[in-house]
Formats: sequence, structure tokens, C-alpha cells
Amino acid sequence: MLEVTSSIAEVRRKVAMARIKGLTIGLVPTMGALHQGHAALIDAARARCGYVVVSIFVNPLQFGPQEDLKRYPRRPAEDEALCREHGVDLIFAPSDEEMYPDRQLTIVEVLELTRGLCGASRPGHFRGVTTVVSKLFNIVQPDVAFFGQKDAQQAAVIRRMVADLNFPLEIAVVPTVREADGLALSSRNVYLSPEERKAAVVLYRALTKAKEMVEKGERSAAAVRRRLLETIAAEPLAELDYAEVVDYDTLEPVDFIDGKILLALAVKIGRTRLIDNFVVEVRDELRK
Amino acid sequence: MLEVTSSIAEVRRKVAMARIKGLTIGLVPTMGALHQGHAALIDAARARCGYVVVSIFVNPLQFGPQEDLKRYPRRPAEDEALCREHGVDLIFAPSDEEMYPDRQLTIVEVLELTRGLCGASRPGHFRGVTTVVSKLFNIVQPDVAFFGQKDAQQAAVIRRMVADLNFPLEIAVVPTVREADGLALSSRNVYLSPEERKAAVVLYRALTKAKEMVEKGERSAAAVRRRLLETIAAEPLAELDYAEVVDYDTLEPVDFIDGKILLALAVKIGRTRLIDNFVVEVRDELRK
Repeated sequence: MLEVTSSIAEVRRKVAMARIKGLTIGLVPTMGALHQGHAALIDAARARCGYVVVSIFVNPLQFGPQEDLKRYPRRPAEDEALCREHGVDLIFAPSDEEMYPDRQLTIVEVLELTRGLCGASRPGHFRGVTTVVSKLFNIVQPDVAFFGQKDAQQAAVIRRMVADLNFPLEIAVVPTVREADGLALSSRNVYLSPEERKAAVVLYRALTKAKEMVEKGERSAAAVRRRLLETIAAEPLAELDYAEVVDYDTLEPVDFIDGKILLALAVKIGRTRLIDNFVVEVRDELRK
Repeated sequence: MLEVTSSIAEVRRKVAMARIKGLTIGLVPTMGALHQGHAALIDAARARCGYVVVSIFVNPLQFGPQEDLKRYPRRPAEDEALCREHGVDLIFAPSDEEMYPDRQLTIVEVLELTRGLCGASRPGHFRGVTTVVSKLFNIVQPDVAFFGQKDAQQAAVIRRMVADLNFPLEIAVVPTVREADGLALSSRNVYLSPEERKAAVVLYRALTKAKEMVEKGERSAAAVRRRLLETIAAEPLAELDYAEVVDYDTLEPVDFIDGKILLALAVKIGRTRLIDNFVVEVRDELRK
């Protein structure tokens, strides 16, 4: 039966009771405005864990001063319904005061991995993410925490943070869920006008074309990146933030495509910034 | 019976077994070269906890490039004997490779509290401390962690980190242990020549005089600080780093002495930098 709390002490009590019962604890950290992408995270948690916690917190620390903190969609009743439908045990939906009762003087930061991609255009964003996720890990103390591949850099940064700080938990990364036409689900898609919504599929189209190039044998990252840039440039409503071919773990740009890489895009459609990515794995046996 | 391990996985197994037995877990983080100050921390842990872990790790991250990382005293056999004598259950003594198998890209930092006092003359020191202590907390997952009042700024910084990041544990701060003449015990005291050792008591003498002023009714921090400065200046072998009167929690300098404050000193005796402090609490009932 779904329970909802805004209290840190209450979360700790509930989780401790579940742990005494021998249940594995799963955490799905979210900012609410839940969609089928979040549902996939919850389903993955449900499949692996006996007790599933979804946190819903629009974290002010990870929004820049010019960003959409105030207009970020908030739909608590709908979120609760989706959690109930997908068998969540506990929603943790704290207030800003519960999470930040005093000035947050302590920060957790992952260097290097947060410099490029979204980090370049969103200074301080990942520091806000890693700080709040550290707090959530310490509050819930999950055995497994679930993140979406859609936020590929976030997933890489969190995986690195968990390894570097020895958090006693496992990170599970869940594949991106898409609309019928390929657009990656995102809480920010609601910002799109009908015309922008049609144009937004350009991210998926560009990634698909680039991936096909790699599958056909192209190994030059520059050539693949050019295809991404050309495809985005052909869409009048799209304005490029970045298009990169990077290593899956280090997020460093690669020259030659080999091993596990990420094709990563950030594009503004009108005023709305969208991100998407494909993971591509190449094993060229004959190459030294 | 004392056990010793250098393995993170082994610590986790041992602590999990102790927890299954219902024991409270105590952690005493140290850099080894244990003395009676550490013994007091261990005794405090022994009194409160059913299972006591002492970590011994000379953390390279918290030493500056000009500091004494290489010559810092290392005495594993003596440390083990002291731990055995004081009833420690587990020594965790990892190698640098066990703690930092890869480059440590993730840092934990407490802002503001680390700016003054030792933070001013040891840039990066507290970032190294909070990062390694976060790792130790996540490895051992203690219920209570024990720190010495001698490192007053460190204790305040760790207390703030635990509150800000919601670490699920309690910090216990244990009073400073002193030699017969008042010198605070420190692993760095071994650096002192016999002559310097005599001169080193000037820190205790200055703090005692300053505290007496407050007890006799002096409320001007400037006057109390002047007494500290004069006393240090009168010792030819002493070179002042800082003498401050600060708030116990925020470590901000105070003008008027009220509530819980810290008289804090850092002094070089020859090449050896020593710190010491007194906690003074004033409750002036008649003052508004």
C-alpha cells in the first residue's frame, strides 16, 4: 500500500522497518511530473527490490538563476496516482525547508566529468545534483538507486560519485523511454507548442542517422559528429547547444570510435532545452 | 579480540556481522601514531558502542605539497598494541590504492567554516578531510563517530557536513588530553627538540590566561585576543600563525564574548606547527 511522507525521520523509520523484514530497498530519485520514463524506473526497481521509495523533490540547488525552477511542472496528485499504479511503497516528497533547513554549506562535486556537455552550459547544475543525491542516499540508504539513461551525463556522474565516495549501494541505469515518433520522454516536453513538438523529433532523427553511420563502419568521431550537426541545422526551430561523441564512462570526446561511446545532443527547440543520447558499442576484433 | 584488515570489503563484512548481533557501531578515524588522546577517543567509543572500529590512514588528500606527508610518523605495531589494550574490535588500515584506486574526482567540501583558522594557512586541507571522512563513513557506516576537541575546526566542519548531508550517524567530540604541563597531545609533538618541547607549553599558557580573563568578566574579544598574542610573542621559539576568538559552531570571529566560544591558536615552534584551543561558555543572565 502506497504511503506518502514529507519527513526525513519518517522515511528513516519506514525504511528501517522494511529492512528488518529483510526487504531490499530501491530508490528512484525524481523531480516529479512523472511520466512513462519514470514508470520504467519504478518498474525496474519493483522487479529488483522488495521496498520501493520514490523521492519527489524539485531541487533548487540544481537550477541556475536563469533556469526554469519556478515554472517546472508540479503535479503531486497525478504523481501519486502513477506511483500507486506501479506499486511504489513510499513517496518521499519533502519541502525545501525539510531538505535545506539551514544554508547548505556542504557540497559534493564530481570534477572533470561535469565540465563538458550539459556542465558547460549549466554551471553548478551537477554540483546541485550530486549534493542532493548524496543527501537522498543518506536519508533513504537504498541498496539500489535507479537513474534514466536519458540523462546520460548525470548517470555517469552519479556512478563516479558512488565509486569515489564508496556509497554502499548499486546504481542501475534504465534505458530511455520514447514517444511513438522517437522523442525521449521528459517532464520538460510539456513546454513545447504543437509545432515545436513536431520539430523536437529532430534529436532522435539525428542520433538515429549517426548511429547508422557507426553501424555501417564509420569510425571517425568527427564524421559522425558532422552528421549530428547537419541534421540539427536542417531543422529551422532547432538551435544547437552541443553535439558530442564521447567515452561512455569518462565523457571525454573521442577521435576514433571504439568500445562503449555516447552520442550526446542538447538542442533548444524554441525556449525549451532538450537533451537526448544513444549508447553505441563497437568491438572491432581485427583492429589492434 | 582485535582483528586487522586493509580491505574495504572485509570491513563491510565484519561490521555487517556485528550489526546482525545488534551491536552499536563506533568509528574512531585516525592517521595512526596513536597516543593517549586517541586512547580517550577509543575509550569513549568503547563506553558507548558494542563494536569499535579504528581506521588508520595517513590521507594524502589532506596534506599540502609543502606539508609533512612523507615524514608523518607511522608506527603500525605500536598502534595495534594500543588498540588491543583499549579493547578495539577492528583496525581498518587501508593502503592508498585501496582508498584511491582511481583518481579521486569526487570531493566533499564544507564552505565558509573552512575559510578561516587552519583553513587559511592550509588550503585544500579540510576538503581532503571531509572527502576521506565521507568515504570512511560510507565504508564503515558507524552509528557514532568520535573526533577530538583538539582539532576544533575539524570537529565543527565534520558536524556541519553530517548535518548538511544527512549522514545517518552521530558525531561525538571528546575533550583534549594533555601532558602534565598542559601541552595538548599530538602525533606531531615527536618533531619537537627538547628545547622546543619546553617552549611548546606556551599555547596552553596563553589559552589559560585568556580563559581566566573571560572568567573574571572580560567580554571584549579584542582584549582576550591581545592576551593570547602577547603571551605567544613573549616566547622566542614561537611564531604565531593565528590567535582567534570565534563562535563554537560557525567559527566566525566574535566581537563580544557570549554563549559558547572557542579560543583557538596555531603556533609554529621551530618547524613544527601546533594547534590548541579552549571551549569557553558564558551565560550572562543580566545582559539582554
